[in-house]
Amino acid sequence: MSIVVQKYGGSSLSSPEKIKKIADQIVLRKKDGNKIVVIASAMGDTTNNLLNLATQVNNTPSKRELDMLLTTGEQISVSLLAMAIENLGFDSVSLNSFQSGIETTGYYAKSKISEINTTRINKELDKNKIVIITGFQGYNKEFDLTTLGRGGSDTTAVAIAIALNAKLCEIYTDVDGIYTADPRFIKNAKRHNTISYDEMLELSRLGASVMHARSIELARKYNMIIKVSSSLDNTSSGTMIGGFNVEKVCLRGLSVDHQIAKISVIGVPDKPGIAHLLFYEIHKNNISIDMIIQNVNYNGLNDITFTVSENDLNEANLLLKSLSQSLNYKEIKWDKDVSKLSIVGTGIMGQGEIAAKFFKILSDLSINVDMISTSDIKLSVILDKSKSIDALEALHLGFSNDFYTD
Amino acid sequence: MSIVVQKYGGSSLSSPEKIKKIADQIVLRKKDGNKIVVIASAMGDTTNNLLNLATQVNNTPSKRELDMLLTTGEQISVSLLAMAIENLGFDSVSLNSFQSGIETTGYYAKSKISEINTTRINKELDKNKIVIITGFQGYNKEFDLTTLGRGGSDTTAVAIAIALNAKLCEIYTDVDGIYTADPRFIKNAKRHNTISYDEMLELSRLGASVMHARSIELARKYNMIIKVSSSLDNTSSGTMIGGFNVEKVCLRGLSVDHQIAKISVIGVPDKPGIAHLLFYEIHKNNISIDMIIQNVNYNGLNDITFTVSENDLNEANLLLKSLSQSLNYKEIKWDKDVSKLSIVGTGIMGQGEIAAKFFKILSDLSINVDMISTSDIKLSVILDKSKSIDALEALHLGFSNDFYTD
Repeated sequence: MSIVVQKYGGSSLSSPEKIKKIADQIVLRKKDGNKIVVIASAMGDTTNNLLNLATQVNNTPSKRELDMLLTTGEQISVSLLAMAIENLGFDSVSLNSFQSGIETTGYYAKSKISEINTTRINKELDKNKIVIITGFQGYNKEFDLTTLGRGGSDTTAVAIAIALNAKLCEIYTDVDGIYTADPRFIKNAKRHNTISYDEMLELSRLGASVMHARSIELARKYNMIIKVSSSLDNTSSGTMIGGFNVEKVCLRGLSVDHQIAKISVIGVPDKPGIAHLLFYEIHKNNISIDMIIQNVNYNGLNDITFTVSENDLNEANLLLKSLSQSLNYKEIKWDKDVSKLSIVGTGIMGQGEIAAKFFKILSDLSINVDMISTSDIKLSVILDKSKSIDALEALHLGFSNDFYTD
Repeated sequence: MSIVVQKYGGSSLSSPEKIKKIADQIVLRKKDGNKIVVIASAMGDTTNNLLNLATQVNNTPSKRELDMLLTTGEQISVSLLAMAIENLGFDSVSLNSFQSGIETTGYYAKSKISEINTTRINKELDKNKIVIITGFQGYNKEFDLTTLGRGGSDTTAVAIAIALNAKLCEIYTDVDGIYTADPRFIKNAKRHNTISYDEMLELSRLGASVMHARSIELARKYNMIIKVSSSLDNTSSGTMIGGFNVEKVCLRGLSVDHQIAKISVIGVPDKPGIAHLLFYEIHKNNISIDMIIQNVNYNGLNDITFTVSENDLNEANLLLKSLSQSLNYKEIKWDKDVSKLSIVGTGIMGQGEIAAKFFKILSDLSINVDMISTSDIKLSVILDKSKSIDALEALHLGFSNDFYTD
């Protein structure tokens, strides 16, 4: 019997009716003679509703208590999904993170899975039960509940697939795979049959919201193949994410991330150690930074600009305020009305042609580029949020004959 | 520093505003220099809403999964209450049953607390934190979540008070104490200043919905004094429940339980072992039975009638169906439209006068009595549900000069 690991997102589980449909699908795979482990997200808007409740009692709740609150969302969906499966005459058991042995690092809100003790999961599989596990969460050394960040259920699924030696990790979502651009905005976007971890990592980090970036990193590390497909439409073959090597230069996709903010620390003394102090403190507070630019002025003062996730903006600003003495800056500026637009593909930066065409298209639209960042397989720019979708459309049209979807 | 253990019911925590008010009250007690442990129920209608979700995916969900679902209700309320306390500038930590070490027996839905490992609770109290604990639940030897039955948070509170050696267990509810009858129905009901465990046990078992019966049994066993008072009105002194001895005959209260059902097993053979088999099987399925009557007929067949909690009616009927061969009965009849009405007081059954007056009042109202049960300190009858409140009113009026409220 082979082990099938599936993950269903919140939109696939947003009502009792949808939960019953997913139960039907799961049972079909069970009938094929597989051992089934399902990772479930919270139902539909549950997480947002819980967050809303929290802010009504405390505008800045502690992360420890927020994780305690949010983890209930998945416990609700897993128990309902197990009941729906039992209703079809199959044995099932739901497990929360204490029960499924998902240990994480100490951080709250952005924890990482450190170990999975699969004893209980295997015990239930041996009893021929369909095991339903809470995604998005774990417990730390203090035996406190922790969450893995938005979209963390993908990471739970990949980690469980690795721990159980599954051949594949199946991710079911409301899109039937990975596209050359977000199909909600770009009608002509094309679906990839396969895509490499590295390319997907850039795409997911860059805001292609299908997959949680950490799940791809983890899959790459352990060479776990991920299949992304639709929970609603089982006619599409979806996209396989794996260690696929593409030798030739090829363009894979465009992505936009709206959930970012730009922070500028203006007028810091141009002396060694300042950038270190700044980014060390930011790291210590578990805030992720993406792009960094430093402008050297000629009056002995520098401006350091960087981007953070929009969710971290308040915390980053509070932190900078507390560092005003040690950093000795003139002022802090920040801007939430920015987006990051990226073009991704193997070898594209080695070929100047793509970068040149990219900037020409933006320039033809009179779109100003704020910050630029590159890697082997991507080129990203920060631009005005209000112009980001226009830019995405023009770029996708301009490059439409260059995308490689195998 | 003395330890204060408080329990707040779901109606006291039914909205973010109410949670903030309760947080204010808790912090006031903290300022007095106490170590505070709070047991919280689920917010308002949460438990019913979760039950409703469950029945939408499965009409008869397994108890294991139902407990997994229902326990989220308290985890939501404890985390919100901890956040509301943090908002007032006080350190707080919420603990679910895994974290607060509340071990229970293996049963689901009707579990009993077997042990409390207070290590974590004490650790948090030593850090000067206000500890908020999920009521109504625990975990069993399989490391599965279990619930203690409706109203089980009272039992959690008493058990925690005992485990922490608190002087007192404070129960906050929407009534400011124990009355001679339910004050929602009887305007002239009088509040008791003190009441004995035994009397309270009869009153709570008999449907005086203020307290969970098991909590009183537990408090009696360890001689833990319980103070019942209102979470809204702190001018009333409430009622103390304890080992108070009242030597003289005294009448304490009337109670009505609507949540019961009557089952008759008609025409079972009049031979040894039948009643044993019946009640052994019922016990094995963890269904509680209250009153039992057996009518001996003269054709060699008996009718056995008993009452169960309304919640257990379906399960009891299914069980009886499965026993039709071994019990060899003619038919099963059941009735949900019944209530149990009881009069409680020390020594009242030793004095025939009270029983005589009780039946005279019912007879004057032409109310038929279905079943009768007595103990040292109570007299209970089963009657038509539609007539139970009329009967309660007439009895409370008839006995109004006889109640002793110290």
